[in-house]
Amino acid sequence: MKITDAKVIVSSPDRNFVTLKLVTEDGTYGLGDATVNGRELAVVAYLQEHLIPCLIGMDAQNIEDIWQYFYRGAYWRRGPITMASIAAIDMALWDIKGKLANMPVYQLLGGKSRKAVLVYGHANGSTEDEVVEQVGHYLAQGYKAIRVQCSVPGVQDSYGVSADKAFYEPAAGALPEVCSWNTAKYLDFIPGIFEKLRATYGYDVQLLHDVHHRLTPNEAAHLGKSLEPFRLFWLEDATPAELQEGFRHIRRHTTTPLAVGEVFNSIYDCTTLITEQLIDYIRTTSTHAGGITGLRKIAALAEPFHVKTGCHGPTDISPIGMAACMHFNLAVPNFGIQEFMIHTEKINRVFPAGYTLKDGYVYLDDQPGLGVDLDEKLAGQYPYSRKYLPVNRLEDGSMWNW
Amino acid sequence: MKITDAKVIVSSPDRNFVTLKLVTEDGTYGLGDATVNGRELAVVAYLQEHLIPCLIGMDAQNIEDIWQYFYRGAYWRRGPITMASIAAIDMALWDIKGKLANMPVYQLLGGKSRKAVLVYGHANGSTEDEVVEQVGHYLAQGYKAIRVQCSVPGVQDSYGVSADKAFYEPAAGALPEVCSWNTAKYLDFIPGIFEKLRATYGYDVQLLHDVHHRLTPNEAAHLGKSLEPFRLFWLEDATPAELQEGFRHIRRHTTTPLAVGEVFNSIYDCTTLITEQLIDYIRTTSTHAGGITGLRKIAALAEPFHVKTGCHGPTDISPIGMAACMHFNLAVPNFGIQEFMIHTEKINRVFPAGYTLKDGYVYLDDQPGLGVDLDEKLAGQYPYSRKYLPVNRLEDGSMWNW
Amino acid sequence: MKITDAKVIVSSPDRNFVTLKLVTEDGTYGLGDATVNGRELAVVAYLQEHLIPCLIGMDAQNIEDIWQYFYRGAYWRRGPITMASIAAIDMALWDIKGKLANMPVYQLLGGKSRKAVLVYGHANGSTEDEVVEQVGHYLAQGYKAIRVQCSVPGVQDSYGVSADKAFYEPAAGALPEVCSWNTAKYLDFIPGIFEKLRATYGYDVQLLHDVHHRLTPNEAAHLGKSLEPFRLFWLEDATPAELQEGFRHIRRHTTTPLAVGEVFNSIYDCTTLITEQLIDYIRTTSTHAGGITGLRKIAALAEPFHVKTGCHGPTDISPIGMAACMHFNLAVPNFGIQEFMIHTEKINRVFPAGYTLKDGYVYLDDQPGLGVDLDEKLAGQYPYSRKYLPVNRLEDGSMWNW
Amino acid sequence: MKITDAKVIVSSPDRNFVTLKLVTEDGTYGLGDATVNGRELAVVAYLQEHLIPCLIGMDAQNIEDIWQYFYRGAYWRRGPITMASIAAIDMALWDIKGKLANMPVYQLLGGKSRKAVLVYGHANGSTEDEVVEQVGHYLAQGYKAIRVQCSVPGVQDSYGVSADKAFYEPAAGALPEVCSWNTAKYLDFIPGIFEKLRATYGYDVQLLHDVHHRLTPNEAAHLGKSLEPFRLFWLEDATPAELQEGFRHIRRHTTTPLAVGEVFNSIYDCTTLITEQLIDYIRTTSTHAGGITGLRKIAALAEPFHVKTGCHGPTDISPIGMAACMHFNLAVPNFGIQEFMIHTEKINRVFPAGYTLKDGYVYLDDQPGLGVDLDEKLAGQYPYSRKYLPVNRLEDGSMWNW
Repeated sequence: MKITDAKVIVSSPDRNFVTLKLVTEDGTYGLGDATVNGRELAVVAYLQEHLIPCLIGMDAQNIEDIWQYFYRGAYWRRGPITMASIAAIDMALWDIKGKLANMPVYQLLGGKSRKAVLVYGHANGSTEDEVVEQVGHYLAQGYKAIRVQCSVPGVQDSYGVSADKAFYEPAAGALPEVCSWNTAKYLDFIPGIFEKLRATYGYDVQLLHDVHHRLTPNEAAHLGKSLEPFRLFWLEDATPAELQEGFRHIRRHTTTPLAVGEVFNSIYDCTTLITEQLIDYIRTTSTHAGGITGLRKIAALAEPFHVKTGCHGPTDISPIGMAACMHFNLAVPNFGIQEFMIHTEKINRVFPAGYTLKDGYVYLDDQPGLGVDLDEKLAGQYPYSRKYLPVNRLEDGSMWNW
Repeated sequence: MKITDAKVIVSSPDRNFVTLKLVTEDGTYGLGDATVNGRELAVVAYLQEHLIPCLIGMDAQNIEDIWQYFYRGAYWRRGPITMASIAAIDMALWDIKGKLANMPVYQLLGGKSRKAVLVYGHANGSTEDEVVEQVGHYLAQGYKAIRVQCSVPGVQDSYGVSADKAFYEPAAGALPEVCSWNTAKYLDFIPGIFEKLRATYGYDVQLLHDVHHRLTPNEAAHLGKSLEPFRLFWLEDATPAELQEGFRHIRRHTTTPLAVGEVFNSIYDCTTLITEQLIDYIRTTSTHAGGITGLRKIAALAEPFHVKTGCHGPTDISPIGMAACMHFNLAVPNFGIQEFMIHTEKINRVFPAGYTLKDGYVYLDDQPGLGVDLDEKLAGQYPYSRKYLPVNRLEDGSMWNW
Repeated sequence: MKITDAKVIVSSPDRNFVTLKLVTEDGTYGLGDATVNGRELAVVAYLQEHLIPCLIGMDAQNIEDIWQYFYRGAYWRRGPITMASIAAIDMALWDIKGKLANMPVYQLLGGKSRKAVLVYGHANGSTEDEVVEQVGHYLAQGYKAIRVQCSVPGVQDSYGVSADKAFYEPAAGALPEVCSWNTAKYLDFIPGIFEKLRATYGYDVQLLHDVHHRLTPNEAAHLGKSLEPFRLFWLEDATPAELQEGFRHIRRHTTTPLAVGEVFNSIYDCTTLITEQLIDYIRTTSTHAGGITGLRKIAALAEPFHVKTGCHGPTDISPIGMAACMHFNLAVPNFGIQEFMIHTEKINRVFPAGYTLKDGYVYLDDQPGLGVDLDEKLAGQYPYSRKYLPVNRLEDGSMWNW
Repeated sequence: MKITDAKVIVSSPDRNFVTLKLVTEDGTYGLGDATVNGRELAVVAYLQEHLIPCLIGMDAQNIEDIWQYFYRGAYWRRGPITMASIAAIDMALWDIKGKLANMPVYQLLGGKSRKAVLVYGHANGSTEDEVVEQVGHYLAQGYKAIRVQCSVPGVQDSYGVSADKAFYEPAAGALPEVCSWNTAKYLDFIPGIFEKLRATYGYDVQLLHDVHHRLTPNEAAHLGKSLEPFRLFWLEDATPAELQEGFRHIRRHTTTPLAVGEVFNSIYDCTTLITEQLIDYIRTTSTHAGGITGLRKIAALAEPFHVKTGCHGPTDISPIGMAACMHFNLAVPNFGIQEFMIHTEKINRVFPAGYTLKDGYVYLDDQPGLGVDLDEKLAGQYPYSRKYLPVNRLEDGSMWNW
């Protein structure tokens, strides 16, 4: 089943998305998400100029071989641009294979391991009171698990907090927003939020928190200990994880569950984290880590080491990338949770998708393939517009992690 | 000293190069190499569409801050496309700083630690006899160190062997060449080459060999032991190194010196390799690992652990990237060797450069900055033309490492 | 650029300083600090009798080569006298190179990574109340970070406490003062100080504490745990660190941030501490650890392991040594904090310096080189006078660590 | 028994020596060796200006307390200058205690563990033939163990080779001699020497070889393997040992016995080497490592780990330092061997000593104390003359280890 056509569609219905469309000789097409937030056009060039010429004429059925062809054949392996490109190809191929089999992709991945996918929503506020109210709002919608972020008093532009409570989008502007950071103020403030939430809502709701790479391992260890009484579902991205060994110290000091990996793009980013059991949840996601094929390799490594999945899923994961995660989530034995942000209506019209949120779970319909389409005509109405994720500086001006 | 202009020049004088030119408010300009062989235009897009808009107005003197801004500010860190983009900016900024200080860049890096830079050349042949002859040819030119590659009988398209003996260029064609591989034949054949070379030329010449990622750690350990009597300068890329721990087994079994890292783009690719002293030479190069700033971070980590540098330097490293390596090589205390392939005359006219090969050493002149210029007008005459590095399959068709 | 003259100036404007002055053939001169508190004249002899004869005629531009020449060429490597001698040469060479480039030294180190340098002051008192008052005094001056030391009831001559609140100088007298120590009393007393300080001033000020090598690793682990509720910025010199592995036990038991290394003189004093992430801050300083070149080697090792710098900086670091630290601090990516004690007016007249304290930050002006001068004539008016740091005994008379 | 006088005598009977003389209130005096070859006057200043003022009035019997007083009281601990100063005090105090007890020092150390001290001599030559002849010469003198060094063809100024066969003295000249080095030539040449020696003299003589820090750990591992058939007594200073872990790789690859430590000055220089059993012989010597007290601490650590002593003992160890080693050697349970170079007649007249070489063993007479005296008047006739140990560069000019 030869691939006869391939094109990259860049569209910006409220935000930028890069979509790959592969077509086979019988007219079947598959879609893949290649969006790297803030670096979109580098992926477009990688696909269009370098991979697509090779794809034409390949057998769309050989998903693993094509994955290896582009992974090993890159010579310069790994990295977000390379792996998002491979991811888009991989998703599109699984989409095609599902359509050829007339089955939803999860069936090809081994079938349903659960009836639906537990997701977490994102409560945030600029004050403690607003956060408490927002968590209540999510609970009222039936969410079982809620990530909680709050502005830190005295810190300008804390991450994870949005004026518009329905949607959170940090990528913006003609240049990167420059945020500011003060670790001491953050460490001083955060445990109180969770104390209040537990006092208000009890322990039946799963609460998550994202540190967003702001702490050193030792600070993270301290925070983890401070939060133990409030039994978080997870503490996310406690420290930058290029040095996987950095999690050893955190792990020795706290039993607060740890999640990391949304910025990872390869299994080699987490071999130490997983085989030493330094984390509880691996957060790599389909779009950034080589698609469903990449995700499955990581999940397979994690399974014997008691590490569960918790795929990254903010709005820059397009409905196609989200669907890829959902099929994976439904099938993988060591599923943990899925991050889930609601896309805007405009996005949903461009990418009509076959999954539905209900009472904190996402359900997949039984369309063949990934179950997401792309309205190319509509997509054409929303041209790309450059946007940047913020950068972050300490109060003395030193670059820090956003 | 504000950056007022930045542009990316893609030119193909015999081969593709991506060059960044930064200009400051006083008219000083700096050049950087951003060439990623076979993936050139992804770097172009990364620079043009995403980084350059941020660069304008920055202070060209703040090299480390700009490096951190783009490294941390990428959010999706590391990878060859990201790090080559940062590399080009970094080189251009060092070039500018050198010109502002009226000093060659090596002076800013701490001054000369040696009088010249030992390089190795590339002898190759399709038969044992031709290899022996070619090594003699390099010896006659004064080379002190020679990398030796030979076609393996029964293996189609062995890597590292070129019809044109003066220049070796694996990137070619409208689609990646598909090579073939047979590990058993290779392991059987290679030691005999070095036995013959030692019998012919003795032990006074340094011989290197590149395995080009073809072996497993255990096969590499075996090969390393087989080669011990012939005392190689190094055995390169013995196994793919995404899993750094893979070198532990090799290291336990052989004292043949090990070199790896031409495909690395970050210090985190080699923390285990270096701190556990699993290698003797780290091969990261300026263009792929974040420029001079990135290289220095890696070399400084390597220094207390007895690991020396051995920067990658084939022809896809432009004269600018090569000059960046040379200034680094001249200054860094733990220099080992530099790979050096001669560029064609056409390339040398587009990039007039202030370094000279003589008797196996490269000498730098004392021009301020990096000492390489770009003839933009001439560059404009050689438009980009897509080229690919080969891919590699085992005899049964399995994808393997090229 | 040949070195044509070198001399060592010993001067004691309120306290002893050893300064090296190097002059090049064009008349440019550079200054370096070689003060080892209590052992000054050994460094003078090391420089005058053994190193200076070699320096004359060397190329002042070759900083790394000269560093290696004296480091490796000593044969008997490392140690405080050797490394302070090398430090002074190194600082003077960077000072010269900055002047030759017409740039402040921080520009040669990669440029500004922050706008100013966070420093900590030294509040101390003989009673809890006095300590509280003194911390308030520092806060009123704008300090963001304050080291807190207090006399321990029942312990004679606790370290770090001064009658004169403006200046603290432990080196004194014709013979070493003999202090006394009681670990139990100290462990019993210290946490209360920090409890009171947090109750009084809240958590917005950074508090530091120096154990001054008085505890065993296990006692330090205990103290670290006791202090966790009060969130210190760091706990310093918790135990003597000749045995780096001694910090493993402390680290396993507490998340109180750990700092160590003011007595270190080489990267080999901290390879285990850093690569095993046993500390949060490395306190080596320019004057004692081989100058800017030595400091940079250590900081580069620390960077990937989440360890930040926190250079030692009491008054026995001369304004030249302090300036060297400041240029380093401004440029190094993983800067943490700088210790800062105000020199007396007399010292400032002998060493007019281009840095200014304001609101808890030190700002550098843009003079070429290090930006500190030496008034040799004035220096000549203050002859050397032998002074000793104290020694310390347990109550039974056993020698202990001061 | 108060110390009432202390003076430092610098004398140069054929070579420089620094001697400390302590006198007690009853007129007893003790002598200590403080010679640091090439850095003599720094030790003189350290002693005269900083330690001696504290010594006067101390109780000469409290050897351990005085050792700790100067070790801990230095604040800036360790290093060759500090530890040689402490060493001289320590030796002098043991000398005094022996005289007060009317016993040779070895009796105070626990008495004789053996009848005499096995030493090794130094055969060297500029050609293979000369080396063979010289080994024969030493055998004829009754030596049981011989260190063998040879000029390496093509390497200028190889270490360890002397024109005058009776005496070897590398320290010379108004400036450090600059030697040159080529590792490949050395590795190629050395095993042949030992093959020839074993063929000529069999396996009954103990052969030693000193690498003099010239190799990386991997090169040393290779050499160790190559030498295994020739069963060396030890391979010395295979690689610089500031990074103790560097010996792990050597140790994994060869059973050639390893010795290291002549440049060490503290037990902390060898804790890893000893507790991981990475070496067979620890070479720290009395003069450089804190005297007899320092040596005993190291030997005590080595004893349970099967590591034996092999004290450094070239001619820059004065007869006093040598005597200190000999008393230690006679008493310590885990004695291995003692390096022994014959002093010139002139030296022996200045330092009349009570030990005698016979048939490869050194015998001590039974004089009280160390059994060495100093003829101060004669010493006064040989004024200090600055001398330097050589430095060493690779052929490209890079600084390397001498």
